[in-house]
Amino acid sequence: MTALAVTRELADFVAASHWRDIPPAVRREGIRGLLNYVGCALGGSSDEAIGLAIRVLAPSFGSPQAGIIGRTERCDMLNAAFLNAASANVLEYDDTHLPTVMHPAAPVAPGLFALAEARGTSGAELVHAFILGVEVSCRVGNAVMPHHYRRGAHITATCGIFGAAAAAGKLIGLDPVRMNWALGHAATQSAGIVESLGSMSKSIGVGNAARNGLAGAMFAEAGFTAAEQAIEGKYGFAAVASDTVDLGRITDGLGERWEILANAYKPYPCGVVLFPVIDACLELRKRIEVPAGEIRRIVVRGHPLLRERTDRPAVDNGREAKVSLQHSVAAALLHGAGGLAQFTDAAVKEPAVLALRAKVTAEDDASIPVEAAYVAIELPDGSRIEETVRDGRGTPGRPMSDIELDTKIGELATFGAPFVDVPALIAAIRDIETMGDAAHIMRMTVPS
Amino acid sequence: MTALAVTRELADFVAASHWRDIPPAVRREGIRGLLNYVGCALGGSSDEAIGLAIRVLAPSFGSPQAGIIGRTERCDMLNAAFLNAASANVLEYDDTHLPTVMHPAAPVAPGLFALAEARGTSGAELVHAFILGVEVSCRVGNAVMPHHYRRGAHITATCGIFGAAAAAGKLIGLDPVRMNWALGHAATQSAGIVESLGSMSKSIGVGNAARNGLAGAMFAEAGFTAAEQAIEGKYGFAAVASDTVDLGRITDGLGERWEILANAYKPYPCGVVLFPVIDACLELRKRIEVPAGEIRRIVVRGHPLLRERTDRPAVDNGREAKVSLQHSVAAALLHGAGGLAQFTDAAVKEPAVLALRAKVTAEDDASIPVEAAYVAIELPDGSRIEETVRDGRGTPGRPMSDIELDTKIGELATFGAPFVDVPALIAAIRDIETMGDAAHIMRMTVPS
Repeated sequence: MTALAVTRELADFVAASHWRDIPPAVRREGIRGLLNYVGCALGGSSDEAIGLAIRVLAPSFGSPQAGIIGRTERCDMLNAAFLNAASANVLEYDDTHLPTVMHPAAPVAPGLFALAEARGTSGAELVHAFILGVEVSCRVGNAVMPHHYRRGAHITATCGIFGAAAAAGKLIGLDPVRMNWALGHAATQSAGIVESLGSMSKSIGVGNAARNGLAGAMFAEAGFTAAEQAIEGKYGFAAVASDTVDLGRITDGLGERWEILANAYKPYPCGVVLFPVIDACLELRKRIEVPAGEIRRIVVRGHPLLRERTDRPAVDNGREAKVSLQHSVAAALLHGAGGLAQFTDAAVKEPAVLALRAKVTAEDDASIPVEAAYVAIELPDGSRIEETVRDGRGTPGRPMSDIELDTKIGELATFGAPFVDVPALIAAIRDIETMGDAAHIMRMTVPS
Repeated sequence: MTALAVTRELADFVAASHWRDIPPAVRREGIRGLLNYVGCALGGSSDEAIGLAIRVLAPSFGSPQAGIIGRTERCDMLNAAFLNAASANVLEYDDTHLPTVMHPAAPVAPGLFALAEARGTSGAELVHAFILGVEVSCRVGNAVMPHHYRRGAHITATCGIFGAAAAAGKLIGLDPVRMNWALGHAATQSAGIVESLGSMSKSIGVGNAARNGLAGAMFAEAGFTAAEQAIEGKYGFAAVASDTVDLGRITDGLGERWEILANAYKPYPCGVVLFPVIDACLELRKRIEVPAGEIRRIVVRGHPLLRERTDRPAVDNGREAKVSLQHSVAAALLHGAGGLAQFTDAAVKEPAVLALRAKVTAEDDASIPVEAAYVAIELPDGSRIEETVRDGRGTPGRPMSDIELDTKIGELATFGAPFVDVPALIAAIRDIETMGDAAHIMRMTVPS
């Protein structure tokens, strides 16, 4: 094997990996990632985009092999992977691999649960495959960043498909040659543009990453051949994807360093830069003794990226609100929360929110790191209170605790699939390592 | 509309186009393109890759809305589009848009026939949509060439999807806003790498272009929104696809110049550069009075690209033979043909072919254009005969005649689907403009 046969090296690693090789901290993060995935899919399952997608795809539903989280419909594995990935990502409440800004779970997890339902698998096998899939997606992403994303490739979709193929291939039990082909099929199907973000079309990109990654593993299983140097070849994925390729990022320290340990979970369903701002507002609200509507003025100071990405004083709908500093501040101060209810179309139109967001101004301070923020409030009597957050919740310095994650799952289920027995579901996922039949989790996410 | 809203301008053009706007020569080339498409799909329908793909996808077959050319199976429109596109391209006997080296029909045509079967459409509507789809694919390709292909993007798949979406959207009757979304869904699903060529994986890329383009039109029909500047936007397709973008190539002369007039049909199922060489060999064979096996030596002289791409003295299988000068020359001289039978695994192993290909040498001559070639043969008595072909069959200077195309369709049907009534099928396609129900053609391509 030459030093450049990274596709094959990656395939060998995935095919050879044993559950016993996975360190406890990595296993724990795998389970947290699955928990966040299932929660996000429950929350997103009633979104308009998912209903439309089901309507379009229903005539193409094959055998009822697999469930759609939060819904009564059943369909073939490929369509289930597409729809569950779209649900998991549609609310912008994902996990985030911080070095690449990728959301790894939505493409990787759905094919695994579909395989669990159609073919049967243990919980430990599923978590193992999920961890490996996240590893593959993030490593491929690392190798083509930063140019790949900067150019406009939607990395969650374009690199997520590699993890989807590898993870499904692991559950299927592909040998190294076929695992290599599965990655090759992923490479030739890698797609997704950042321009689609903000429209429903984003869900097609993320859904395809899950669907086509799973399909790639199934094609490989059947003996359908692919390019063996699909990533590193002269006309392969890396050459097409980026002008700043570092193939060593794919193979260096495989099995020693684990990318899933850099995976965080969003505490609020909005842009990452807003997290410390909302944290600060929620702290300040506890100290205000007048109704928030009486606040005279709010000044937010943060890294210049904050204003660049989120200085949107007037927004019309929930989707835009997710990247509006003014809306996020007003809703957090008025509602005392920064959850799904604060980013609905209805929340955007509340007169109190409209009035308060007009009092918010933003200031740049290049000395403030992106995961920090300062918020000052001027009260009706002219007095001033202020709060500095150094590490926003859901950033590396202050990861979401298990309890915070459980609360988030509850919020998501209530929002999108209120019939779910949330405590039982959380307990089952936290105990997935001992579960004989991982499909049990899927059965808990659909109406009985 | 700003000068840069090319996605919308393209959508407007497709949505507004009338059949009466299509000049006769363009209509004729549309029909020839469909004829070549159906023939290639018949020929490819019994290929190993197609059988494997059907086995993998069968559990995902939805309602039996559409046929698979050359086969008894029926499935939903999306899977039918995938499989028919793969069949049409698998033998390397496609049409070729010479400026982009794209094969436009395989991604564009299958969704149209699937829609014809599932929803009903006239023949004229189908040809019209096909012509527009080819126009869109080739114009998007023109805009990102040459860098897009040089980098490693498989342009038949990456740009073919735009035409597939536009053509299906035209048949569906999308309004300009929804047509714009269909192109947006195409942009975020655009995928395919040249590295996959030579493996079965290429068929996944071409199949997806047809499938996902059709899906994009169906999602748009349902109101599923997309990025409106999906091609020209800051993080859109063009920015991701190429460093040499010329957006004017998408919109200049729309409705005045027609790309399908630059679409040629392969006379032989092999690399384009080999066409004049095979032509010369077939001419020379007529003048040789000894068995071809007694030839002493063969010298081929051509543009340096000929040697660069096809100087492969030893090949092991039919797929490699399609890009081997030595094999193509030996088989053409021995068999007096350059068809499907000359590029099978069996043909590659014939002792006479092995012996003769060893006598072939290639020489560069930069003064010879790529569509020309010179071949000289030294006979057993030491005498020498030679032939110069200026314009190989299937090049712009010597396009395939209708009779040559009909013969090719017959060869393809005999190879892959011998049950077909070829004369009746050809007559039906040539008469498609007057056909009330275009699905009739599909019914003629499957066993009754």
